[in-house]
Amino acid sequence: MSTQSANPRTGQVFGPIFPDTSSQETFTILESALSAFNTWNRTPAAERGRALAAVADALDAHKEELASLADSETGLGLPRLTGEIARTTYQIRTFVDALGEGKFVTASLDPAVDAPPQQGHPKFLRSVRGIGVVAIFGANNFPFAFSVFGGDTASALAAGCSVVIKAHPSHPQTSQKIFDIAQAALIGAGAPAGLISLGHGLSFGRDVITDSLVSAGAFTGSHRGGRALFDLAQSRTNPIPFYGELGSINPVVLLASGYTDATTFATAYIDSLLLGSGQFCTNPSVTFIPNEPGLLAEIEKQLASRDPQPLLSDATKLQHDQNRESLKSALPFRVLHGKEASSTGFFSDPEVLVLPSNQISGEAIFETECFGPTGVVITYESVTDVIAQLEKLGGALAGSVFSAVDDPNAGEVIEALARVCGRVAWNAWPTGVSVTAGQQHGGPYPSATSPLHTSVGIHAMERFLRPVTFQGFPDELTSTY
Amino acid sequence: MSTQSANPRTGQVFGPIFPDTSSQETFTILESALSAFNTWNRTPAAERGRALAAVADALDAHKEELASLADSETGLGLPRLTGEIARTTYQIRTFVDALGEGKFVTASLDPAVDAPPQQGHPKFLRSVRGIGVVAIFGANNFPFAFSVFGGDTASALAAGCSVVIKAHPSHPQTSQKIFDIAQAALIGAGAPAGLISLGHGLSFGRDVITDSLVSAGAFTGSHRGGRALFDLAQSRTNPIPFYGELGSINPVVLLASGYTDATTFATAYIDSLLLGSGQFCTNPSVTFIPNEPGLLAEIEKQLASRDPQPLLSDATKLQHDQNRESLKSALPFRVLHGKEASSTGFFSDPEVLVLPSNQISGEAIFETECFGPTGVVITYESVTDVIAQLEKLGGALAGSVFSAVDDPNAGEVIEALARVCGRVAWNAWPTGVSVTAGQQHGGPYPSATSPLHTSVGIHAMERFLRPVTFQGFPDELTSTY
Repeated sequence: MSTQSANPRTGQVFGPIFPDTSSQETFTILESALSAFNTWNRTPAAERGRALAAVADALDAHKEELASLADSETGLGLPRLTGEIARTTYQIRTFVDALGEGKFVTASLDPAVDAPPQQGHPKFLRSVRGIGVVAIFGANNFPFAFSVFGGDTASALAAGCSVVIKAHPSHPQTSQKIFDIAQAALIGAGAPAGLISLGHGLSFGRDVITDSLVSAGAFTGSHRGGRALFDLAQSRTNPIPFYGELGSINPVVLLASGYTDATTFATAYIDSLLLGSGQFCTNPSVTFIPNEPGLLAEIEKQLASRDPQPLLSDATKLQHDQNRESLKSALPFRVLHGKEASSTGFFSDPEVLVLPSNQISGEAIFETECFGPTGVVITYESVTDVIAQLEKLGGALAGSVFSAVDDPNAGEVIEALARVCGRVAWNAWPTGVSVTAGQQHGGPYPSATSPLHTSVGIHAMERFLRPVTFQGFPDELTSTY
Repeated sequence: MSTQSANPRTGQVFGPIFPDTSSQETFTILESALSAFNTWNRTPAAERGRALAAVADALDAHKEELASLADSETGLGLPRLTGEIARTTYQIRTFVDALGEGKFVTASLDPAVDAPPQQGHPKFLRSVRGIGVVAIFGANNFPFAFSVFGGDTASALAAGCSVVIKAHPSHPQTSQKIFDIAQAALIGAGAPAGLISLGHGLSFGRDVITDSLVSAGAFTGSHRGGRALFDLAQSRTNPIPFYGELGSINPVVLLASGYTDATTFATAYIDSLLLGSGQFCTNPSVTFIPNEPGLLAEIEKQLASRDPQPLLSDATKLQHDQNRESLKSALPFRVLHGKEASSTGFFSDPEVLVLPSNQISGEAIFETECFGPTGVVITYESVTDVIAQLEKLGGALAGSVFSAVDDPNAGEVIEALARVCGRVAWNAWPTGVSVTAGQQHGGPYPSATSPLHTSVGIHAMERFLRPVTFQGFPDELTSTY
């Protein structure tokens, strides 16, 4: 097997062929990664930070070339991709700052207490260390922010881990280019060889996640692929933490008090829905609106005004189209249509599927993710109906409520959203994930395989740090922690 | 199926028969637990603390009765059991204090930044909430500290979760008594009905860990039982965090500089080894000593001077004896014998299995846990041999090094232990787990299914808290977080 790029706007394949990484190559990569971990994990945090900063600088220095290459493989457009590179290097630098300030990596001292049990105890120094070699699986929808050197790789390296990365098959050239730039910057900054490695192919992914030398995994992508890797990680002789982001059906609730102008609301909804051709993990998936015909008419009008954008790959389009058909055959939606999309390349027609809340049966709207230009709009008569529906949702990355501050229904909706979401936004769409310490990108399954962790923001480091306590040690032997 | 107590000193069964909890009863319990969670999770932290304090007071008030009942079911002796109750109520009160101080449960504010991307962002309030209903599986070796109302239950309740507890079959009466006392105290303190529940039987355990209403599990016990529950939790449609402590082979390294008197060292070793009849998860499992005949002679002498204590149950004895035979048939140990044990009741003869490091083959000494009065002593010529052996160990709760401060070999041994252990003790045996903020009770698998967490100390709460971020909310709507 092998991988080759395809242009989403035309469907044409182009560029070099990347053969699958062999098991023998994988063995060499992992041995080298373990050796690098043992050095890197004992490298002072500030020095790790300087090496990460060198990567951020190098990526910024190549931003035009990287954005152009990624656009040819993903069709996401230069403005979005240039912004994503800036976002990625900004995120890398937040970890540099955290390491410089000793955040997350400084040991805490619990001094000895000279007292009878239970109060008395020896001195404890609670330190953290990188969990080991981390396997990272690049996502197709963020060729920079969640790929070869995105938040997962940066947070694992910041934590003192080495990383082994599986390139996403829909942007192999961008993956290789990022890797080459990052590798040169790391080596130039004195990091050990083998600290990062890149491989290709499904069998490479299986080989690394099942290898005893690997201590954790991180993945952003489809439920099918992510769950298969999660299952492999958990069925090992020694199971390991696997941080998967496996898809999210994000709920949005518009209360009657939450808008004044139908056009403004509908414009913002369609903007959020079609951002990145609907391929954001935080797109508004199911939007509850009061049953007011003016709103729907405006949504239909806005939808019809936008030019379709291509999907990332043939596989993404196929999965999206299949899931949308499955959803449409399950429930009696009224379908709002956008402009007809190009029949060449990886385009799908944008659609909004509308259903009154009293016609929902089963859990299809919360179980079928249409990852692409498709939204579901539920019209409701009573907020009670909305709450009842939200109870069927397993877990989501983000939810939104649009409301006036004094709306008597707001509290109940906020609580219902907080029960199932990692982030709840007030009068704002779920798309737009700020890189900041207060961010939480991860909710209950399937939006994350561990609802305790975030993959965005400096807390992302916590996924790869394990505590080690030194009991009763003399200061001179633990002074470097 | 049903459960009945047996006296470890005689083997005689006694007391009431506890039938297995039926699936219908389990359904009712879980519905009630979910309802209690929804109330408790929104109860102010300090108020949750007051209810926990009432339980600690009630357990202390019944300590003689509880210790006596537990002694009849476990044979652990009144001094140890009385101490364990004090340890348990002390641990509950550390959570009360943490809640009173707002530790772990206070939201952190990330104020809005008015700047262009990437720096600019809305206000984020990063709060935490209890993960949901938690299934807790009582351990047999700690009828108070890791059972019905030990650290797992206390930390889950402190985090705002409700709990459903499976009683351990080797102390059903003690389990029921603790439950009755705790339930009365919680209700008296105004906690919701259904906040804690108790069930019996293997099928009850399977029912709760696979039910969609349950959001996390915690277990301390054998690898076989714990791994089966872990696998059930991970193979659900929606996998959940499962915090298992599945056994630990704890390494101890004595450097030549680490002792001055063979008798003192050997006495302390045998004390630690036979504590609780060897049924501590932190007992010294594999002890590396310099090849000095005087040391072994003292160990043999000390071993022969102790009276055997019973094991907790017929099943514990059977498993211990089988594993010890398996280990002895795998490697050419020289066997040091203790006093012959009683042939009635659940006794096993204490033994120390001795092997020179150059006769170790395979990984049996690090894969076969003899949970009971059995120790392995490895005599070595060179510290390099010890390091090579430690690299075979997957993960352990605790390790110890005995050394002088200026021993040139100390650093390498400490690093080798820190790679595989959650806690490393200096010139101290691994037994004796202080309840304090700096504690780390959990290492890589199998000692813990999540090496990121501890089950002892106030950090144990972190296992049951998930972050939820409120983005852009007006203060009046999130002021209670």
